[in-house]
Amino acid sequence: MKLRQIRQSILALSVFLTAVCSASDTAPRPNILLILADDLGYADVGFNGSTDIVTPNLDVLAEQGVTFSEAYMAHPFCGPSRAALMTGRYPHKIGSQFNLPTRGSFVGIPTGETYISKVLKNAGYFTGAIGKWHLGEAPDYHPNKRGFDEFYGFLGGGHNYFPSQFEKAYQKQVKQGMTNIDHYLLPLEHNGKEVRETEYITDALSREAVNFVKKAADRQGQPFFLYLAYNAPHSPLEAKEDDMAKFPQIIDQKRKTYAGMVYALDRGVGRIVDALKETNQLDDTLIVFLSDNGGKTILGANNYPLKEGKGSVNEGGFRSPMLFHWPKAIPAGARFENPVLALDFYPTFAGLAGADIPDGKKLDGKDIWSDFMAGKNPHQRDLIYVLRHRGDHSDAAVRRDQWKAVKKGKQPWRLYNIEKDLGEKRDLSGKHPLVLRDMVHEMEKWSWDNVQPLWFHISDEGSRWRRHGMPRFDETFNLE
Amino acid sequence: MKLRQIRQSILALSVFLTAVCSASDTAPRPNILLILADDLGYADVGFNGSTDIVTPNLDVLAEQGVTFSEAYMAHPFCGPSRAALMTGRYPHKIGSQFNLPTRGSFVGIPTGETYISKVLKNAGYFTGAIGKWHLGEAPDYHPNKRGFDEFYGFLGGGHNYFPSQFEKAYQKQVKQGMTNIDHYLLPLEHNGKEVRETEYITDALSREAVNFVKKAADRQGQPFFLYLAYNAPHSPLEAKEDDMAKFPQIIDQKRKTYAGMVYALDRGVGRIVDALKETNQLDDTLIVFLSDNGGKTILGANNYPLKEGKGSVNEGGFRSPMLFHWPKAIPAGARFENPVLALDFYPTFAGLAGADIPDGKKLDGKDIWSDFMAGKNPHQRDLIYVLRHRGDHSDAAVRRDQWKAVKKGKQPWRLYNIEKDLGEKRDLSGKHPLVLRDMVHEMEKWSWDNVQPLWFHISDEGSRWRRHGMPRFDETFNLE
Amino acid sequence: MKLRQIRQSILALSVFLTAVCSASDTAPRPNILLILADDLGYADVGFNGSTDIVTPNLDVLAEQGVTFSEAYMAHPFCGPSRAALMTGRYPHKIGSQFNLPTRGSFVGIPTGETYISKVLKNAGYFTGAIGKWHLGEAPDYHPNKRGFDEFYGFLGGGHNYFPSQFEKAYQKQVKQGMTNIDHYLLPLEHNGKEVRETEYITDALSREAVNFVKKAADRQGQPFFLYLAYNAPHSPLEAKEDDMAKFPQIIDQKRKTYAGMVYALDRGVGRIVDALKETNQLDDTLIVFLSDNGGKTILGANNYPLKEGKGSVNEGGFRSPMLFHWPKAIPAGARFENPVLALDFYPTFAGLAGADIPDGKKLDGKDIWSDFMAGKNPHQRDLIYVLRHRGDHSDAAVRRDQWKAVKKGKQPWRLYNIEKDLGEKRDLSGKHPLVLRDMVHEMEKWSWDNVQPLWFHISDEGSRWRRHGMPRFDETFNLE
Repeated sequence: MKLRQIRQSILALSVFLTAVCSASDTAPRPNILLILADDLGYADVGFNGSTDIVTPNLDVLAEQGVTFSEAYMAHPFCGPSRAALMTGRYPHKIGSQFNLPTRGSFVGIPTGETYISKVLKNAGYFTGAIGKWHLGEAPDYHPNKRGFDEFYGFLGGGHNYFPSQFEKAYQKQVKQGMTNIDHYLLPLEHNGKEVRETEYITDALSREAVNFVKKAADRQGQPFFLYLAYNAPHSPLEAKEDDMAKFPQIIDQKRKTYAGMVYALDRGVGRIVDALKETNQLDDTLIVFLSDNGGKTILGANNYPLKEGKGSVNEGGFRSPMLFHWPKAIPAGARFENPVLALDFYPTFAGLAGADIPDGKKLDGKDIWSDFMAGKNPHQRDLIYVLRHRGDHSDAAVRRDQWKAVKKGKQPWRLYNIEKDLGEKRDLSGKHPLVLRDMVHEMEKWSWDNVQPLWFHISDEGSRWRRHGMPRFDETFNLE
Repeated sequence: MKLRQIRQSILALSVFLTAVCSASDTAPRPNILLILADDLGYADVGFNGSTDIVTPNLDVLAEQGVTFSEAYMAHPFCGPSRAALMTGRYPHKIGSQFNLPTRGSFVGIPTGETYISKVLKNAGYFTGAIGKWHLGEAPDYHPNKRGFDEFYGFLGGGHNYFPSQFEKAYQKQVKQGMTNIDHYLLPLEHNGKEVRETEYITDALSREAVNFVKKAADRQGQPFFLYLAYNAPHSPLEAKEDDMAKFPQIIDQKRKTYAGMVYALDRGVGRIVDALKETNQLDDTLIVFLSDNGGKTILGANNYPLKEGKGSVNEGGFRSPMLFHWPKAIPAGARFENPVLALDFYPTFAGLAGADIPDGKKLDGKDIWSDFMAGKNPHQRDLIYVLRHRGDHSDAAVRRDQWKAVKKGKQPWRLYNIEKDLGEKRDLSGKHPLVLRDMVHEMEKWSWDNVQPLWFHISDEGSRWRRHGMPRFDETFNLE
Repeated sequence: MKLRQIRQSILALSVFLTAVCSASDTAPRPNILLILADDLGYADVGFNGSTDIVTPNLDVLAEQGVTFSEAYMAHPFCGPSRAALMTGRYPHKIGSQFNLPTRGSFVGIPTGETYISKVLKNAGYFTGAIGKWHLGEAPDYHPNKRGFDEFYGFLGGGHNYFPSQFEKAYQKQVKQGMTNIDHYLLPLEHNGKEVRETEYITDALSREAVNFVKKAADRQGQPFFLYLAYNAPHSPLEAKEDDMAKFPQIIDQKRKTYAGMVYALDRGVGRIVDALKETNQLDDTLIVFLSDNGGKTILGANNYPLKEGKGSVNEGGFRSPMLFHWPKAIPAGARFENPVLALDFYPTFAGLAGADIPDGKKLDGKDIWSDFMAGKNPHQRDLIYVLRHRGDHSDAAVRRDQWKAVKKGKQPWRLYNIEKDLGEKRDLSGKHPLVLRDMVHEMEKWSWDNVQPLWFHISDEGSRWRRHGMPRFDETFNLE
């Protein structure tokens, strides 16, 4: 099994290199379509080997494009991961380490952080955000204020899927005089104006993406950037009967529902690709597909062969399935087996668009495009961090090349050779203490310009944070 | 008794509406005279029904103007309440939740917050502050730096009243080589220059207000804004013998002294009104009279029928007696029985003055003028907050329409129908759990962009704050 | 002995006054050469009475210039003391109360604080920093970004002395793949470019200072500012054999090594003075020599007659040996026996250079030049503070004229007459309680605009700080 993996890797690499060499020159200023799934498991797409869930449309893109085995998001859960996508910064550097408050708030990702959408818009792109926002619901933080010409979706951290149901629940609370209503039930909006949605949400978002793509086609000479953030397959587990019926062989009800949700998402991708074809834009469009973090196994997701899932600093928490598709510029059928970070998108997209990054803008990733096209590891010797604060301690991990150091709970630091031991099973800390020490010291160094969280998901997190004198990095980076 | 109250309300409302309808059009750019009493009880003015203390001059203004039954200050004690008046912001939003340090400091209300005085000055007003400042004693925070052309008074949080006494105490300490001298004893100043005051302080402030009014009269075409902040009847309890002698029927010595102090204040109001008349300015002057917070009952004040007093989140803590007087524009003899906030003054004054509010200036109140003139509730469905931090917890309350939710100490949240139950006696939380839950959730939402206090009144408060991981909003907004 | 001291003081004063009176007018825009020793003891230079360590070159400067008996640094250890030198601010006012993190970091003295080097550069000076930086190692904090045209040295808080040794240790770690390498071992740099140093570090820094002085001589009409920050005699204790051999009479090995390190520093001073002479610049150069804080007695230093040493709020912690030398302008052979603060250098240098201090720049010291030239105490009635945070409390002291109030650990405040009792032995708090109270209250007042530390030296300090609710100024300024 291990041998087979290695052989596959070598094969993939050679295919990749051949492919790259024969690829035509990069087209100038592509459209960029960033499709984000929510809590999608590493193993839950066909192109990553799923056998029970089928994703035919994504798989076609994978076959015609490049898939990635080591795509890392900047955080193992939603809000901070998305903040990193938009800002190009580790969420800990901008106070966005926690999800926004459940009961709502007037806070959001600091407005001093220019979003990639703004950078692309300033460079002439037609920009749109569709779906889940989760980066601030107050006016200052609205997508239309952060560089998006168009927004269709909802501002909270998730949403129920069937309008016929959530509309009823919403109206009931309104009638009772309530105003602090669960975000999952709120009406959707279009550029700040409430809309009455009638379709299953995943289908609705796909429909709007198709509309955006068609609108974009009418704008001669203006490329587009579309950030399509599906809430699927995030909870609540709500799938259409027809979609679930596609998976008669799945017995577990959660897995079956989850599968139906992924299937609907994949159907949407197909529709959008069709629209791109129809409007003659597909060849000039870089499609990026990935998930904001790992899948939640208790809700039916599967991150095999990665350890654990959403919320963990093990690979299952923040390594995502990912593909690039861009017929004119990148090879078909290759697999890129080096680390690529969600943090890289900001400078990479800006580079592709020839866009100016504002003076003084700090970025934690890098423009990977030339390394990617050359089949080279863009992050050789780089340190890749993941840090999740918990009640009275922090889980932390840092990767450099084959090494990954991991600290969880009150356990000591462990060291894995992540290239040979993807499941993080064999602790090598005793064998390579200097390697471990150096990486932990580097992460401690990295930690000093982390800033205090600007908010917490629930009030209790904030009280515990302060009462426990968090962050307790003396304990996090303690090697004895 | 309850019936009588309701009948009175209806009567007052009809009088009000009739009066408003017959009032002439609003005069453009009135003078604005904001008279603030210090720790004055709700029931301690004639126009609010006081039977032992008489305030003949205020009562005349009340008869010729409009009184308010539900005037809310933004905080139940001095410093934060005044910060809110000047900035139009809840003190918790700008780090000013505590009184300034007792031993002095170089801190003050953040200079980034433009004061209403500056807004009016920029709009052409002649501006003056007389009396107690309490918003920062260091040069950057001086009234003359915050939009006041003229300042006469003292920078601290209070003052002794008899110059013959406090001057002696001050000189004694100076001779001992001391420099950190009790603010209550310091010489007064005029625009930064020390002055030697000889009159009883309340009379001195009235005299200076008269002078300002006369000076203002000489400035053709330039309206004035005068912020007259009496320290009376704040402690120390020091009244003139003659003024106490006006209240032979009051036996309690504290009450008697307090009454004398209020009487002196009222006399001053009379003198200022006379000066306005003499200079032909009265008709064009909006006089607002109110207190910074509730009265301190252990020092002789009376907040009947409100519950508790200064420092409390019950009504006695932050509901103030209030009147408006403006012959040319508003009706005589009416009573406005809807909530009006001290936070509303900033936008309302700016509106009346046709003044520009700086771009990006955040405000927590609203311009109530048109609602007020129409006899309409300017705060229907609005949430009105009061939040007082204590050693290891916070007292909190939120009002919306007839409902008021209150949390004190370690007790559970209670819910009152504040329109029917002004004394906050009948807890309806069991009967209306959804109403309570929604309001508490809204207050929790509101709390997230509160900022950490920039100072504390005493060092110990700060240590406790940090040691207890304050604010403990998980406990404050806990409903179980 | 006491009598003798007093007699000496009187003598010194009269010499001083005579000398000043006969001195020629101050030359315009002198060169400024600020030579900083590291952890040098008060008694460890000849001009302060050392009998075992000889510093012939410094002593010549002392004889031809003015020495100071009461030169106070702003903090009793390195990083904060240097931050104060560059910014003119108490380190507590800018979040720099602790040394920078041992393992490295991306933080540094806030870039909003304009350094004196920048002020002088803007006024036309040719500026250089040589030696130890310790004010931030990330690019934004580099000397070349903070007003220094030239930098030669190392960015960390110290360095090993023998290149043949530290280079080997460094290379070994590099070969092991380590990147977080002890700063004391890193290669030196010149304007951001790594250099391979071969000389004993103290000699190397002297050599570079000579080079700078010669370069400066070529710039007709442009005065220079050179900040020469020797790391000697800071640990590690590493001296050249030849230099140690100069002290055969010293038996203690630590003291002998330390003596050799001071001797090497003194030799460097001699070389630089020679270069100034050769280039005809000596007469127009103000040389200031001092130490960043007291000596560390367990590493061989001697602070006699001062109490304690580095790290302490007693005099031995932050009173430094100091001399001024400027033939054209100041007297020879005088001793200035009034307090002078490191915080005074910023405005004093700016004054001498006729340089503009940026609008709004806050400064905690004052331009002492005219008082100094007049032989007057520039800090009469001024309050001079020293504050060192420890794990769960703070040590604090405040001086005014002859009085010094001291609080250490959990002990009560003590009061000393520091003019008569340099060793801080006789507590007079019982005798002068009002004096003590006033000074403690003034220090409490001063403390309120201290800011939270932006970093700590080690992670554990930060955790303890937060867990203990520091600063606990309620305990620090508690008089009962």
